[in-house]
Amino acid sequence: MSVSTLAAAPSVCAPLPVLGRDVTVPLVTGGEVTYAALDYAASAPALQRVWDDVAAYAPYYGSVHRGAGYLSQLSTDLFENARRTVARFLDCRDGDQVVFTRSTTDSLNLLAATLAADCQVFVFETEHHASLLPWRDSRVTYLNAPHTLGEAVDTLERALAGRDPHGTALVCVTGASNVTGELWPVRELAAAAHAHDARIVLDAAQLAPHHPVSVRDLDVDWVAFSGHKLYAPFGSGVLAGRADWLREAEPYLAGGGASRTVSRRTDGGVDVEWHESAARHEAGSPNVIGAYAIASACKTLTEAGFETLVARERYLIETVRAGLAEVPEVRVLSLFGEDAPRVGVISFVVEGWNSSHFAAALSAEYGIGVRDGLFCAHPLVRTLLGSDPQSQGECGAPEAAPGEKSLNAIRVSFGAGTPDEHVDRFVRAVRELVRDGAKWQYKTEDGRCVPAV
Amino acid sequence: MSVSTLAAAPSVCAPLPVLGRDVTVPLVTGGEVTYAALDYAASAPALQRVWDDVAAYAPYYGSVHRGAGYLSQLSTDLFENARRTVARFLDCRDGDQVVFTRSTTDSLNLLAATLAADCQVFVFETEHHASLLPWRDSRVTYLNAPHTLGEAVDTLERALAGRDPHGTALVCVTGASNVTGELWPVRELAAAAHAHDARIVLDAAQLAPHHPVSVRDLDVDWVAFSGHKLYAPFGSGVLAGRADWLREAEPYLAGGGASRTVSRRTDGGVDVEWHESAARHEAGSPNVIGAYAIASACKTLTEAGFETLVARERYLIETVRAGLAEVPEVRVLSLFGEDAPRVGVISFVVEGWNSSHFAAALSAEYGIGVRDGLFCAHPLVRTLLGSDPQSQGECGAPEAAPGEKSLNAIRVSFGAGTPDEHVDRFVRAVRELVRDGAKWQYKTEDGRCVPAV
Repeated sequence: MSVSTLAAAPSVCAPLPVLGRDVTVPLVTGGEVTYAALDYAASAPALQRVWDDVAAYAPYYGSVHRGAGYLSQLSTDLFENARRTVARFLDCRDGDQVVFTRSTTDSLNLLAATLAADCQVFVFETEHHASLLPWRDSRVTYLNAPHTLGEAVDTLERALAGRDPHGTALVCVTGASNVTGELWPVRELAAAAHAHDARIVLDAAQLAPHHPVSVRDLDVDWVAFSGHKLYAPFGSGVLAGRADWLREAEPYLAGGGASRTVSRRTDGGVDVEWHESAARHEAGSPNVIGAYAIASACKTLTEAGFETLVARERYLIETVRAGLAEVPEVRVLSLFGEDAPRVGVISFVVEGWNSSHFAAALSAEYGIGVRDGLFCAHPLVRTLLGSDPQSQGECGAPEAAPGEKSLNAIRVSFGAGTPDEHVDRFVRAVRELVRDGAKWQYKTEDGRCVPAV
Repeated sequence: MSVSTLAAAPSVCAPLPVLGRDVTVPLVTGGEVTYAALDYAASAPALQRVWDDVAAYAPYYGSVHRGAGYLSQLSTDLFENARRTVARFLDCRDGDQVVFTRSTTDSLNLLAATLAADCQVFVFETEHHASLLPWRDSRVTYLNAPHTLGEAVDTLERALAGRDPHGTALVCVTGASNVTGELWPVRELAAAAHAHDARIVLDAAQLAPHHPVSVRDLDVDWVAFSGHKLYAPFGSGVLAGRADWLREAEPYLAGGGASRTVSRRTDGGVDVEWHESAARHEAGSPNVIGAYAIASACKTLTEAGFETLVARERYLIETVRAGLAEVPEVRVLSLFGEDAPRVGVISFVVEGWNSSHFAAALSAEYGIGVRDGLFCAHPLVRTLLGSDPQSQGECGAPEAAPGEKSLNAIRVSFGAGTPDEHVDRFVRAVRELVRDGAKWQYKTEDGRCVPAV
């Protein structure tokens, strides 16, 4: 199947309207072009409907929780309803808590803060740093990268079988890799965890924007995701799941909102009684607009229908993969191989190109926004590249000058707002750049690869 | 000076335009009225200009930090420029860091996490819970409520003079009370702290929206404030100040963005090298819109001129205080007395009224949004009320039924967006409610005092 055949085929449905869809950017070669945002895996544009909902609400914004005014009560209801909307979106169990955080990173740091001192954590080295690093106060077992879905389950099984039977255990696993886009066998990993009396948290940052996530069906104990990857970039994220560990833990933040009563003791100290609801971990005034934006995105995606969205995304994925497959110099990074199910996140390297140089040319000469680097998943990307694990690199910013051997990769990612034209343009740009070279000179400046003027 | 005289006098300048200024709300007695948002101390409405800036930027939103695309670079520049704008707004020293957090609560919890194990913390019992509670892992000395500005300084002096000379020390103090609105002698307290080799952090949540804050002039080591009280309710806050403790501490959140390099060790563990800049404590994708909104508010307030804003607010404060003074049943809560300088935050109780009942009537019968409760400053409000320190109360939601003796208070608060009419209406409403009683019946439902239908 050739790229041109695919590109000519009609896609399943129109993309969902997003902000910025008409924004034009200048090309270094002259003229302007509509911006092709192909870095959804980092941050997706806001859905138009999310923006419209936020804009409609903004004049009614009021202080939540205990404000006596009309807008305070409206805002409080809106905030608590957002919690319920998220619970429905994730198909949570009765009794699960939905805590609004600021991001997936924050959500997983919160969960880490609830772990008992003797908790053993199991995490694959292939995780995003947000899933890899928050467990620093616990006993962590880092699992080697598996190369098949089955190996992933076997690796976890073996590790859990050998665990210290005393104390609690937690498995943290991604739903879809932020590097390869590949789906992980979450249901099977959850079954393995539970078989060994461990709990499991799903990092759904890259999964939730692309696929339906059911806490019940997957049988995960918690799920974390970010608003800014779910078309709701207003500073909020979610941790949802089992209430017990959350309720038993010290509050994540100490302050108002989390405290039910505070009083001086006769010895001069202070006694605090904390809330047991989600508010326990949400001290400070909540980000009402952020939470409402996430709820709006959940509704919009649900109403659009994940079946339709997945079918449309599959078309985009196939277009990109078929296009890249026609360029022999391109190597797509993969753990689980050609046929592994995946979301619209594809990383690759181009023989003879420094990835930053390539990404800069995509931007400056084609108006395409991708990402280059190690994608905050250093061990995984180094494993995939086969590069020296000692080599240093900024999170996403290599020091290598254009022309040197690549120590990092290029990532293209897309979703519900991506029009066919963006991926078509991307495929054409890769082909032309590899065939003809860049039209412009580039240099490294302040850690960025930019056109030399 | 009578209320009517004051209300008839022209105010110094027009209020700054804010969102929601034309929103109308229904009255239980029939009809609608424009909403009088008088709960600024909890959350202020967004400045129109902040909203306009956010709306203009939103289509250009892109993934920050290391995205290669045009909008990613634009968004990264916007985010880092916001940091510089905040540093200017606070008159920071060279070398100070500006960390974007989610709120003042978050900022102070971050600072608490940087403290050395032997750090001694000194905090007045009169603080908001956000300043009172984050120091739970440290040795904390709670200082009794002072009743004059001089007593505040003397109390701190004495406590610091008696401190363990080994180890570091930190004083945390509010700039303006969230209960009484009274200004604290920050410069003098900072001098006392430094004289005893202690550091000081200023909780400017209630100060920064009303007065200029100069880190240099006040000579404080850190300052914390919230966007949602500074007319920028998009989920961001700030901790700004000395870099050393921030740089030496473990990252607040562990994850991408904070980590420079991550690699597996040969023994299976993971080595992490963390950033030393503000990014160290900002793991996860930053809330670009939230940070930009704060920067926009900083610019708008600076351009409007604090001299003008303070003069205008003084007029509003005097209108309210003069109006309340004419109602003998009203007792205004104060630590430092009649003449203490203050911002537009005034708490009071009304003899014979339950505060929740009174606040509910202000809302339902006059369209005025205030707050009732203990304002997340339980020890202070109990001290001011002289009530039993063992009495329990939700943060802002008492259990007492209408008609019972009040265990909590009513707070009215306002700022740069408040038109004269709102405070005039408030003064009239207080007078009428006390004189004539409520026109409607109220009941407690789900912890809220609401009109009985």
